[in-house]
Amino acid sequence: MTEPLKLYSYWRSSAAYRVRIGLDLKGLPYETVPVHLVRDGGEQHAEAFRRTNPQELVPVLQHGERVLGQSLAILEYLDETWPQPSLLPADAVGRARVRALAQAVACDIHPLNNLRVLQYLENTLGQDADARMAWVRHWIGIGFAAIEAMLDTPAGGRFCHGDAPTLADCCLVPQVYNARRFKLDMAPYPNIERVEAACLELPAFDGARPENQPDAVE
Amino acid sequence: MTEPLKLYSYWRSSAAYRVRIGLDLKGLPYETVPVHLVRDGGEQHAEAFRRTNPQELVPVLQHGERVLGQSLAILEYLDETWPQPSLLPADAVGRARVRALAQAVACDIHPLNNLRVLQYLENTLGQDADARMAWVRHWIGIGFAAIEAMLDTPAGGRFCHGDAPTLADCCLVPQVYNARRFKLDMAPYPNIERVEAACLELPAFDGARPENQPDAVE
Repeated sequence: MTEPLKLYSYWRSSAAYRVRIGLDLKGLPYETVPVHLVRDGGEQHAEAFRRTNPQELVPVLQHGERVLGQSLAILEYLDETWPQPSLLPADAVGRARVRALAQAVACDIHPLNNLRVLQYLENTLGQDADARMAWVRHWIGIGFAAIEAMLDTPAGGRFCHGDAPTLADCCLVPQVYNARRFKLDMAPYPNIERVEAACLELPAFDGARPENQPDAVE
Repeated sequence: MTEPLKLYSYWRSSAAYRVRIGLDLKGLPYETVPVHLVRDGGEQHAEAFRRTNPQELVPVLQHGERVLGQSLAILEYLDETWPQPSLLPADAVGRARVRALAQAVACDIHPLNNLRVLQYLENTLGQDADARMAWVRHWIGIGFAAIEAMLDTPAGGRFCHGDAPTLADCCLVPQVYNARRFKLDMAPYPNIERVEAACLELPAFDGARPENQPDAVE
């Protein structure tokens, strides 16, 4: 597997952040291709990028000639192609739990709060900054309350599932980063904060942080 | 695997609809436990159901004592536990494409248009029926345009991916059902309509339709 890996990424995209963590956990070197989601109306909407990904979203992973979209699909691809260290537990029930936690972020929280939705709330529905902040905190709050309860089980360990990071941690840490950015009070979510702290001690999670990306802006 | 399967479902929930298709494609009999998402403020928010799923969402699959949430995680569990017929292609790139198509629905379209979001738009943001319809059509339209382009490739076949139904079809068909319910003009999406028609010819897809559920209302 010496074919090069290229990640189309934006430093503050939480979906791209998930994939960066996965690549780093696997120890896979990759080239970052920055796609600026705001400048010039969003480079993800430009003709050149649309040919790469008709969804006009980051991240996109290019592995040799293969072009892959959707962060969770990319993470599963990484796990199948480079199985060690595994991002999923060995048993089917454990895998279902990890995927459910990952999807609790990727399906039920993040899609409601990304840039294009906030732009629609502002530009089409005329919602002011306070209303947009309340919207973001509402959906993260509901989602985090559920995840907090899901983490409060014997299956929990140092990380979301047991004592090694999984797909679920790849999704949760970027979502907590977003929650802090939107100044959500994290006090009701001690399990989430505990898992986040354990993750951020690992170099893979640290290297993937938005502020450590080549396209990060002060 | 003689342990009974129980699906907590709502006839018109498109996430539950995905799992019903998967169960039917695998030929797995199951008991439907109806959870009415509207009556009495939503039975998914009742104490009894919250103990089953802290996310307060359907579907939930119970397999013996195991309780699983999130439709895509459930479908992967079904595929791992009863591998035939497979809901994923044999190659890693094909699996990544199928998962990306499934997530294009489950992460980028459906979360924006489900009941709780429409309720927030109405009750908290004071958006009228026209504005809510425009919102729904906007997000389905953007998502379908991307999927339409993704289906327009040599990897496409009779179904989303080749000539057997996959996870992607389990997600796409319920989303088209929703699109029609919200009166989206389907003319720009001939590939999607072609795939939908192929799916609906199969008894598994037909049996899983909302109107064929025990809790369906005229």
